[in-house]
Amino acid sequence: MVAHDKLRVDGGRLWQSLMTMGEIGATEAGGVARVALGDDDKAARDLFIVWCKAAGLLVRIDRLGNIFGRREGKDPARQPILTGSHLDSQPKGGRFDGAFGVLAALEVIRSLNDADVVTEAPIEIVNWSDEEGCRFGAGMWASSAFAGLMSVDDALATADWRGTTVDMELQRISYAGTAPVGGYPIDCFLECHIEQGPRLEASGFSVGIVTGASAQRVYRVTVEGAEGHAGTVPMVERRDALLGAARMVDALHTLAIKTDQAMVLTIGAFDVLPNGRSTIPGKVVFALDNRHPEGAVLNQTSKEIEGVCMRIADDLNLAVDIKERSRRDEITFDPGLNHTLRTEAERLGLDYLELTSGAGHDACKLAHLAPTTMIFVPCRGGVSHREDESAEPEDLEAGANLLLRTVLARAG
Amino acid sequence: MVAHDKLRVDGGRLWQSLMTMGEIGATEAGGVARVALGDDDKAARDLFIVWCKAAGLLVRIDRLGNIFGRREGKDPARQPILTGSHLDSQPKGGRFDGAFGVLAALEVIRSLNDADVVTEAPIEIVNWSDEEGCRFGAGMWASSAFAGLMSVDDALATADWRGTTVDMELQRISYAGTAPVGGYPIDCFLECHIEQGPRLEASGFSVGIVTGASAQRVYRVTVEGAEGHAGTVPMVERRDALLGAARMVDALHTLAIKTDQAMVLTIGAFDVLPNGRSTIPGKVVFALDNRHPEGAVLNQTSKEIEGVCMRIADDLNLAVDIKERSRRDEITFDPGLNHTLRTEAERLGLDYLELTSGAGHDACKLAHLAPTTMIFVPCRGGVSHREDESAEPEDLEAGANLLLRTVLARAG
Repeated sequence: MVAHDKLRVDGGRLWQSLMTMGEIGATEAGGVARVALGDDDKAARDLFIVWCKAAGLLVRIDRLGNIFGRREGKDPARQPILTGSHLDSQPKGGRFDGAFGVLAALEVIRSLNDADVVTEAPIEIVNWSDEEGCRFGAGMWASSAFAGLMSVDDALATADWRGTTVDMELQRISYAGTAPVGGYPIDCFLECHIEQGPRLEASGFSVGIVTGASAQRVYRVTVEGAEGHAGTVPMVERRDALLGAARMVDALHTLAIKTDQAMVLTIGAFDVLPNGRSTIPGKVVFALDNRHPEGAVLNQTSKEIEGVCMRIADDLNLAVDIKERSRRDEITFDPGLNHTLRTEAERLGLDYLELTSGAGHDACKLAHLAPTTMIFVPCRGGVSHREDESAEPEDLEAGANLLLRTVLARAG
Repeated sequence: MVAHDKLRVDGGRLWQSLMTMGEIGATEAGGVARVALGDDDKAARDLFIVWCKAAGLLVRIDRLGNIFGRREGKDPARQPILTGSHLDSQPKGGRFDGAFGVLAALEVIRSLNDADVVTEAPIEIVNWSDEEGCRFGAGMWASSAFAGLMSVDDALATADWRGTTVDMELQRISYAGTAPVGGYPIDCFLECHIEQGPRLEASGFSVGIVTGASAQRVYRVTVEGAEGHAGTVPMVERRDALLGAARMVDALHTLAIKTDQAMVLTIGAFDVLPNGRSTIPGKVVFALDNRHPEGAVLNQTSKEIEGVCMRIADDLNLAVDIKERSRRDEITFDPGLNHTLRTEAERLGLDYLELTSGAGHDACKLAHLAPTTMIFVPCRGGVSHREDESAEPEDLEAGANLLLRTVLARAG
């Protein structure tokens, strides 16, 4: 048995596990397609359980398919340290988003096993169901229910567009477990993840300590004009909904840049109706995703968004309707945990950046239940949700080492 | 028998026929859905043939499903006067687009029958297959083949996106006729149609004499940037394909307005990829439809379109590709026929507007074969290709009377 402060993960083994997991649902372009509760998600879960059992963990599956692997502590009455992330992916996702957090947690267990370390408190590692939300509308229903933010029944009843529910798919892939969802105290939750943005890579540092997650507002904007024949209606008589929506895209982009560097505003889903080559568009519906570290800033921007859209619609004799579809206020991760992260990073000789997360994570849900924080590592080009998502083995190893040290600091 | 110059159509009967035909494929919103070679198109054809036979016409169906009804002249050796349009519609079309031209032709026959008029030359009325082109890519393959602009085999082999060919569907609906496609001389072709634009309505006149049809260019524009996570990529580092495409929509609209009043430029089909709410768009593909009475103007505009798109793409670090997908030069309708139209309109006491057609019509194909022209009537609000397309009975009657007079002037 080595002294705790000499303990390190096996970076090569972590990398190998990521590559092996990446073979499940592998796409030709080097990514993965493991949409939640599909066959490849099931295969990934099966492999994770094999690995948990091989590492001596007691495996538990709850009613929402969350998979826990428990490593007992000297004092089983102490609250467990919980760490993990998710194995599901975007329809064309990468090998690191989610998988890194799950397999870094597993690597921590394996390293403790190798060194014969028994901690005071139990450690649990977790694979949350459906973080990505690609199929059943909003994701993170599984971690939300665990944190008491949503009822298990509501989560089970969530349906995809065909009417297939979470419950039906959990039964189909044999992951409707018998354990209750949450309902017990945990010491803390720690999640490793690739940054999914470019700041860490630009800093040159291997790890980021995440101070919180951005607030977010999602709006649905509907622009209505009048359809007409492309060959016959003079330009000046048109009420072209696409022209209005296009000016809104441009003006809202400018509005975001003017606000401050921390604001991001994205129009990603954008549908033109009737979408015929020779018909002037009568309607455009688009989703507007607006994020900032401070919800109060988004509240102010909300009014400006409305002003910009109304002005453009008025100029072009169009109607516009703006509906808020979802709102999430900013999350502040636990200062005590982050103090520990800073201390352990310094002991490991790791330079770190403190940053907020622009993306949502299961950790944002767990933060409502217990002290929670996240460790980020850089990803190449800041790219994520893409098949060419990539990360460097040494950065992943550094992140996992910081997780290991922090787990040890909490578990004693 | 009344004197030729006293002869008029029965406007009430014409209206009633339009309303009866409008019951076939009727939509709840008052339009029709009679996509070419579908079951409702077949039903419309069947009714047309019943009416043709009841009017004493000799019915002939050619290999491409074009339906002809022939009224013999005193001199069967003379070239027939051909008039008609199409009974197929847009997926959500109106009751007048196409149907008016077919039923106005039928009303001319019925009126000649009522008055016991026998003309010198034969008269043929026609329903062309698939003018709209909603299902088999480009429409007007049937009139194109009749005019010798396309081979019958190529027209028969045209497939929809499922791979079903024109030939298969013609066989299915029993309209793969035995008559050869075209191959005989005609005296002229006359087509009545609603304007599908707002100029006639604004003029207050009941009829328009169409001097020709606009030239047209269709381009496919592809804008490529880089996908990224909506929450994590700072605004200034984005390569947002939608932002670029939006600026192009705005700038191209301005370019069209600056050129002259006769130019129309439409971006009707516009697809954003991957079209996910939380992903910065990596790619936008849109169709650009540009029309003007003079093809030479479109050639100049083509260069300006390229300049505008390249400049915007460069500013935003995007790639842009512009491909011409189809081109049609302007059509000039027959001056001699239009002289007759003006003379007959004056005799009928009808004020008329001379105008060009921004839309394509079967007449644009026939113009390559024989003297051809069109008669327009106003439609409410200039609206067409919509279920609420509408026209006034007295305007339709005026248009049909002008057709009757012109047919008589040609047929003797």
